[in-house]
Amino acid sequence: MRVSAPTLAVIGGGQLARMMAQPAIALGLPLRLLAEAEGVSAAQVIADHTVGDYRDLDTLLKVTDGCAAVTFDHEHVPTEHLHALERAGVAVRPGPQALVFAQDKALMRERLGGLGVPCPRNAVVTSVEEVEAFGFPCVLKTTRGGYDGKGVWVVRSAADAVEPFEVASKAAPQNGTRILAEELVDFRRELSAIVARSPSGQAAAYPVVQTTQRGGICHEVVAPAPDLSDELAGQAQSIALKVAGELGVTGILAVELFETVDGRILVNELAMRPHNTGHWTQDGAETSQFENHLRAVMDLPLGSPAPRQRWTVMVNILGGSDPDAGRLYDGFPHALARDPHLRVHLYGKDLRPGRKVGHVNTYGDDLEDCLERARHAAAWFAGDLGNESE
Amino acid sequence: MRVSAPTLAVIGGGQLARMMAQPAIALGLPLRLLAEAEGVSAAQVIADHTVGDYRDLDTLLKVTDGCAAVTFDHEHVPTEHLHALERAGVAVRPGPQALVFAQDKALMRERLGGLGVPCPRNAVVTSVEEVEAFGFPCVLKTTRGGYDGKGVWVVRSAADAVEPFEVASKAAPQNGTRILAEELVDFRRELSAIVARSPSGQAAAYPVVQTTQRGGICHEVVAPAPDLSDELAGQAQSIALKVAGELGVTGILAVELFETVDGRILVNELAMRPHNTGHWTQDGAETSQFENHLRAVMDLPLGSPAPRQRWTVMVNILGGSDPDAGRLYDGFPHALARDPHLRVHLYGKDLRPGRKVGHVNTYGDDLEDCLERARHAAAWFAGDLGNESE
Repeated sequence: MRVSAPTLAVIGGGQLARMMAQPAIALGLPLRLLAEAEGVSAAQVIADHTVGDYRDLDTLLKVTDGCAAVTFDHEHVPTEHLHALERAGVAVRPGPQALVFAQDKALMRERLGGLGVPCPRNAVVTSVEEVEAFGFPCVLKTTRGGYDGKGVWVVRSAADAVEPFEVASKAAPQNGTRILAEELVDFRRELSAIVARSPSGQAAAYPVVQTTQRGGICHEVVAPAPDLSDELAGQAQSIALKVAGELGVTGILAVELFETVDGRILVNELAMRPHNTGHWTQDGAETSQFENHLRAVMDLPLGSPAPRQRWTVMVNILGGSDPDAGRLYDGFPHALARDPHLRVHLYGKDLRPGRKVGHVNTYGDDLEDCLERARHAAAWFAGDLGNESE
Repeated sequence: MRVSAPTLAVIGGGQLARMMAQPAIALGLPLRLLAEAEGVSAAQVIADHTVGDYRDLDTLLKVTDGCAAVTFDHEHVPTEHLHALERAGVAVRPGPQALVFAQDKALMRERLGGLGVPCPRNAVVTSVEEVEAFGFPCVLKTTRGGYDGKGVWVVRSAADAVEPFEVASKAAPQNGTRILAEELVDFRRELSAIVARSPSGQAAAYPVVQTTQRGGICHEVVAPAPDLSDELAGQAQSIALKVAGELGVTGILAVELFETVDGRILVNELAMRPHNTGHWTQDGAETSQFENHLRAVMDLPLGSPAPRQRWTVMVNILGGSDPDAGRLYDGFPHALARDPHLRVHLYGKDLRPGRKVGHVNTYGDDLEDCLERARHAAAWFAGDLGNESE
């Protein structure tokens, strides 16, 4: 054997797995990928990959055979399969006992409530009548399977509440999806607190960032969050460290938060994998979230999460309504010539409306300049420059 | 087709090709690798790879078929094959008319002399008698095929000069190797000036660095070179830019230089590919030499070569005399726990005496601290900590 390093299995061939490949090259850590299809984002760049279905236990057992550990590009692997992998002797990181709280929002709310972590008022509801009793306006969410704005509805009337139950009832036989009602939080802005935690219990907290969504999809991140009081930043980091420790998370934990208009912090969502709100760390932190995810799941000492400069801005490249107007590789001549400091990350995906196909990072001492450069470049690639460069 | 970016062929499966894979992932640029054997450094991490012989033209034509351009991990592809690839319509970058000056040291000296670039006194010699006439002590070099101290002899007598001619006469029928005699330069230290240059003629110059060799192999780099006068730094960068422009180099050009005890700059060697003396840029510059090499050979606008902090130090991990004493993956627990700011780059190679298997980078405001941390970590991985950590 030429490489004495153990192999890490990664389930899911999206851009998060793709971006794990870069630090894996540096660490000399072989990755073995289970991809949904040939040619998906991570399968383009991870030599050792298999195409198969992550809902099939035999496939999972085969891919992870001989691997030191298994980690994930997404949170959709059935919990019972994760337990079966553990029984088969694979180190599942994060483990099913932690991951279930990222997979099921009702369980997450119950557990966080038990830990005394501040959350929006919430309740599992089983009928439109129960939503009415909870009170309008509110937010309804499927407890499982939602992401990037899918499975989330703001409802202001009984009529609005019908669709969520239809969606949930279709999904329920397969994965036990229910409907969670949450108060519609009057927030000043959204924040994200990312920590890495290893099985040994070492943890590293990244600076708290400000995130802006567009249609439920993360669109823009400023690191660190501007004008955030030390007290709230400390609270946000403490919440993330507490959740990671109490739930036994291994790898990256992203805690999406609301900063309310009355100056409180409430937990919105959890993700137990590298997260869109941490992409700025690739160019803006001493150790990227992808490298610290690998280090954490392999139980290696974590790298410094310190920022490398005053400000870093990340803007996603999202497919516009007219994908033909977008530019990917052919966006480089203008974008790179305009800004020799620009950092571009493309995912090897075609442009489709609303699809994340890449992101750009900028950094420097002048936040307005960073924002202008990142927004211009992202809009240029997406093909909707007119809307973005004002 | 999912990815609209053109494909770049890379010839040679060493660590330089491996480290091109990281920025290629970010740029969404598909690489197609020709590797010497299955499992070599770059073949571990580049999914689209073929095993074959770079000295075989049919193999080269097959690998580069449909690629937008071809670039190199090493300089050993026969010049006549590079011309044949160009005739076949492949963009060869760097092209044979430039690369020949990195392949043949006698041609390089002649060309640089013609450009007025300062070089050590030199002459092609065909016998021991001609070496005596050149004068002892001197340095003899095979004009082709040498690297990492191979094919270089310091000779102080006629007896010393016999071996080089024997080596050259064995190689000559295959590649026309001759012997070049050069004055033994009384140098204060060695420097390296790296530039990237695109076919369009855009060029970017990295800060001039100080390099330390061990047994003819680059061992330590400090960026920028400490206490280098602005005048000499400017001269070094001007030489590199002039050579890149006049020779029509595309991609990275590394110019290894002597700073003489009497305060002059002389060109020692040229390399037309990412170079060991530029590995510091992965963590220390805004754009790494690997990314700028890709951008240059694809004729994309170059990224900023500016340093990201005061000092960056690179130390190679070289196999010690007892490879069993070395540590690669199992060196992480101590090395990463001791220094959360350490940047490690392993090549997926086994330890063998004198073999480059990785490098570490450190950066910060305190040069002594950077040196101590990088030397300690490299020695720890190499297994010769006792010699290095004093």
